[in-house]
Amino acid sequence: MSETVAAADALSTALPEAAAEIERTLDALLPRPEGAESRLFEAMRYAAMGGKRLRGFLVIEGARQFGVARASALRTAAAIEMLHAYSLVHDDLPAMDDDDLRRGKPTVHRAFDEATAILAGDALQAAAFGTLADEDTHSDAAVRVELVRCLARAAGARGMCGGQMLDMLAEQAGAPMDEPAIGRLQLLKTGRLIEFSAEAGAILGKAPMAQRHALAAFGRELGAAFQIADDLLDATASAEQAGKRTGKDAEAGKATLVSLLGIERARLQAERLAEQAIRHLDSFGERAGLLRALAAFTVQRKN
Amino acid sequence: MSETVAAADALSTALPEAAAEIERTLDALLPRPEGAESRLFEAMRYAAMGGKRLRGFLVIEGARQFGVARASALRTAAAIEMLHAYSLVHDDLPAMDDDDLRRGKPTVHRAFDEATAILAGDALQAAAFGTLADEDTHSDAAVRVELVRCLARAAGARGMCGGQMLDMLAEQAGAPMDEPAIGRLQLLKTGRLIEFSAEAGAILGKAPMAQRHALAAFGRELGAAFQIADDLLDATASAEQAGKRTGKDAEAGKATLVSLLGIERARLQAERLAEQAIRHLDSFGERAGLLRALAAFTVQRKN
Repeated sequence: MSETVAAADALSTALPEAAAEIERTLDALLPRPEGAESRLFEAMRYAAMGGKRLRGFLVIEGARQFGVARASALRTAAAIEMLHAYSLVHDDLPAMDDDDLRRGKPTVHRAFDEATAILAGDALQAAAFGTLADEDTHSDAAVRVELVRCLARAAGARGMCGGQMLDMLAEQAGAPMDEPAIGRLQLLKTGRLIEFSAEAGAILGKAPMAQRHALAAFGRELGAAFQIADDLLDATASAEQAGKRTGKDAEAGKATLVSLLGIERARLQAERLAEQAIRHLDSFGERAGLLRALAAFTVQRKN
Repeated sequence: MSETVAAADALSTALPEAAAEIERTLDALLPRPEGAESRLFEAMRYAAMGGKRLRGFLVIEGARQFGVARASALRTAAAIEMLHAYSLVHDDLPAMDDDDLRRGKPTVHRAFDEATAILAGDALQAAAFGTLADEDTHSDAAVRVELVRCLARAAGARGMCGGQMLDMLAEQAGAPMDEPAIGRLQLLKTGRLIEFSAEAGAILGKAPMAQRHALAAFGRELGAAFQIADDLLDATASAEQAGKRTGKDAEAGKATLVSLLGIERARLQAERLAEQAIRHLDSFGERAGLLRALAAFTVQRKN
């Protein structure tokens, strides 16, 4: 019991500390608002700031397993957070989910305008790849290009973009999806990037394949648990708690595991997934404590 | 005189041949339309097919100077054409230039819908970086990651996206721009990617820096000449000839070098830029004949 409390305590300190470090790294990497096109830079910064930094935290803690230099982990974390931020900006657009609120602030197309939001998303995606490819991220070109290759796969047509397409089509069709279809949608839409975030530390650390696969599997299961937690939050929390509009899945008739299984069974499934995720870390020692804590507390998060 | 005719002839054969090869490479690289999300794959293919392939041709002819393997050049050409195609899809969106016609076909958001167009553009950008990062593009990871780094710079906030932001802001402001401002806008919006297209062959061929810089400078001047030719076409050609709506610069009150200098002086400036471009190839031998011909005939193109 006291061990659980200690783990929760450690996580509740480590997460915001990592988030602050990632924020500083993003601040240094993103273009300063100056020149005639500064509106674009402002929108990129607006989009990239804030958020829980789950993905970046996974990079940092994954990298810790292999003694990777902090600067390498932080730049990689920042790149993935840029990619994630771009996806939120585009998902929020009127032609997509048409959302007004994100991370407790007006969405980018609300605070700026649609054209600026599209361009800021596009430029953030380019910046993510550019950051990974830069020499400062890792001295070994083979490591950098492997990060680029894996990010492109996680983010592209067979990953995040494909998942968002499935989501749009499901909403248009209005037909209920079954559990395997929902699982595939969520694996593509959010799972692949979370999986890559966990794997990135192993790539940076040139880890043996077995450990790289173990971290990827941890990320995959954690991502699935995290998605259910997100859907539970949408079903049960207020907009104020969540920092974004909630209840919208039910409103849109969107099939999630929560609507399909009910709140209690969905919560149980998320817990089972989190336990499975933790089991993938069996070959890792005490250094993986924060990763285990993250999985254990994913289902209990309040925003 | 007969030398000029021979060069024009060679170019008029080589360009469509290269375009067909690039098209076949794109066909092999882009995901096949299958599965529940096939609408996304269809839209990506629809967006990527067709076009003059100026950028891809520059990659291929640049690579020829250094004896680069054809497959490497073609994959790099295809990646840059994916990036270019994504930029057209997003530029055509209602929130941006709001165009209905592109390459003689309905634009992607017209043929599909806005959400699909946004996602297809996003996925094409990811695919461009993923293609460059793939082992099949070049055996040397340092070469691949250098291609990624330079493409990210050309396409991002300080390149193409920044240029499109300037374009949107200029249209909203309605205030006339002067020649330096127009020049900077066009350098960012189209110039940087054309510059990189010419430079890519030197990167693939691990060319000495002097030759890499010469090719980049060639691309930069050619890009500027090409942009004026594009604006001349917009001012003088019919939509049928151009395969897209024309006269729209004047209609939107958009400042171009053509509106600022008049048709004849703009044409002269394009010719001067083309001559400067060719001079950067002085240290290259006969192998650069098609690049010289491309610059020489850029101003005379009809679509």
